[in-house]
Amino acid sequence: MINKLVEKIKKTNAPIVVGLDPMMKFVPGHIQRKAFEEYGETLEGAAEAIWQYNKALVDHIYDLVPAVKPQIAMYEQFGIPGLIAFKKTIDYCKEKDLVVIGDVKRGDIGSTSEAYAVGHLGKVKVGEKSYYGFDEDFATVNPYLGSDGVDPFIKVCKEEKKGLFILVKTSNPSSGEFQDRVIKDADKPLYEVVGEQVARWAEGHMGESYSYIGAVVGATYPEMGKILRKVMPKSYILVPGYGAQGGKGKDLVHFFNEDGLGAIVNSSRGIIAAYQQETYASFGEENFADAARAAVIDMQKDIAEALG
Amino acid sequence: MINKLVEKIKKTNAPIVVGLDPMMKFVPGHIQRKAFEEYGETLEGAAEAIWQYNKALVDHIYDLVPAVKPQIAMYEQFGIPGLIAFKKTIDYCKEKDLVVIGDVKRGDIGSTSEAYAVGHLGKVKVGEKSYYGFDEDFATVNPYLGSDGVDPFIKVCKEEKKGLFILVKTSNPSSGEFQDRVIKDADKPLYEVVGEQVARWAEGHMGESYSYIGAVVGATYPEMGKILRKVMPKSYILVPGYGAQGGKGKDLVHFFNEDGLGAIVNSSRGIIAAYQQETYASFGEENFADAARAAVIDMQKDIAEALG
Repeated sequence: MINKLVEKIKKTNAPIVVGLDPMMKFVPGHIQRKAFEEYGETLEGAAEAIWQYNKALVDHIYDLVPAVKPQIAMYEQFGIPGLIAFKKTIDYCKEKDLVVIGDVKRGDIGSTSEAYAVGHLGKVKVGEKSYYGFDEDFATVNPYLGSDGVDPFIKVCKEEKKGLFILVKTSNPSSGEFQDRVIKDADKPLYEVVGEQVARWAEGHMGESYSYIGAVVGATYPEMGKILRKVMPKSYILVPGYGAQGGKGKDLVHFFNEDGLGAIVNSSRGIIAAYQQETYASFGEENFADAARAAVIDMQKDIAEALG
Repeated sequence: MINKLVEKIKKTNAPIVVGLDPMMKFVPGHIQRKAFEEYGETLEGAAEAIWQYNKALVDHIYDLVPAVKPQIAMYEQFGIPGLIAFKKTIDYCKEKDLVVIGDVKRGDIGSTSEAYAVGHLGKVKVGEKSYYGFDEDFATVNPYLGSDGVDPFIKVCKEEKKGLFILVKTSNPSSGEFQDRVIKDADKPLYEVVGEQVARWAEGHMGESYSYIGAVVGATYPEMGKILRKVMPKSYILVPGYGAQGGKGKDLVHFFNEDGLGAIVNSSRGIIAAYQQETYASFGEENFADAARAAVIDMQKDIAEALG
């Protein structure tokens, strides 16, 4: 799957992943009204609204970008109906030949991580048969529990030709609280120690030019991105924090390798809720998906210019 | 909810939580066959089997213990049908007046953690109405992203009178890979630095005698438990790793405070799959739930003796 992701990035010339994080405040009124007329103001109604919203967005951007990243929390908050919308979204995006990165940030002890890996990336056995649960192409993973929390994910990725993005340095303001603390015997911050471990995992699990074990490093920390780029030369870096969280094209340069590859930049609300921004307000709420398309094109230009 | 948990622990004299982690290899053959006859060897069939297994277990232990801890990964691996079984299990346990600790280990940046908190512990707004998604009483949370990943959970707990157990030192063999690394300026391992932060969160969010912000510390690391007990005097410690993972009653003493409270010990396969152990083999597979009850009683004795 990493080979497919790299191919699609080259083909679209857009190292961009669109975050499908459908908060209700982003979903246009007409979509909400129609869903609520059909299902009432219920969890099912909310799930229908976010599914219709996602579908229109995907229809308008699928030819421009290589990948999407649905954030499962935004679906999970609506309970079972929300998770059904998450699954429908994954299936639809795969029909459109998009690479799907499940932003699930799972991570647990061995047998439990194995269950998560099987549920999100692999097949679960039921008697003599086996089934995909959610079937994303990549998943994000939290490394706090160490190798035996991550190894089961790697095992399933190897079997299924899928991939991971492991949290190294997250984009949020308080990410430094633990991640930036300097480890005594290494004389390096924790995120770098985690990055070195990701590099070791990556080396052992290579696709054609890049490993299928990648990392998450926030666009909001470009100096750390510069260091981590060198620490993990074979890992794709998933870079959240562009746009709404404050990251800009020029901050992104050092997340890429000299081959112009090695990073994929996420934008969520900057694209899916573009119609709510002054720049794209002229599209109007009804044309939210056209506004999203315009925002993708602008983001593609911004990054292409920054990369020179 | 922490007050209810403490009351129920005192009443049952059992600081025990039963981990409802229904791996298929634990589910007796007759339950699997019946479920597969009705639903086929499908995800629905697997979900029916784990639900019937859970229901029988809960019916046989609910009067002996204060709480259960369903591990969501074991359900999530079966996709949507599995998560429906997770929700049915939560609802049924609450009907039986058990405190439900959702072992979800979620954790993300601010707005995303808010969605998880709302989905698992709070109510989500849909138009003018609001709904519980999964409605556990407590949730486990991963702290790697720092305060702005945890704060939204605390906010929802305050509103809903619910609680958290934050991962500090996990029970798995490789937990030390990052958690034990010594932080230079604090000259203490990371788990202790995280523990100190948990203590600060706990102090600001008190129930009657204990805080509703607790911690997870593995039974497999009793020496660290001893230190962390002092670092977080007001936090309940959820202690996994008893039984199958190698922890014993005598290892648990230092996880408790002098009031005999402050810790709740989890056992999963040691109880729910007791019938597969030599000690309880005489019950036979058909009577797996009676074997589980006997295992709870033995565990209660083991801990009571250790606590003197």
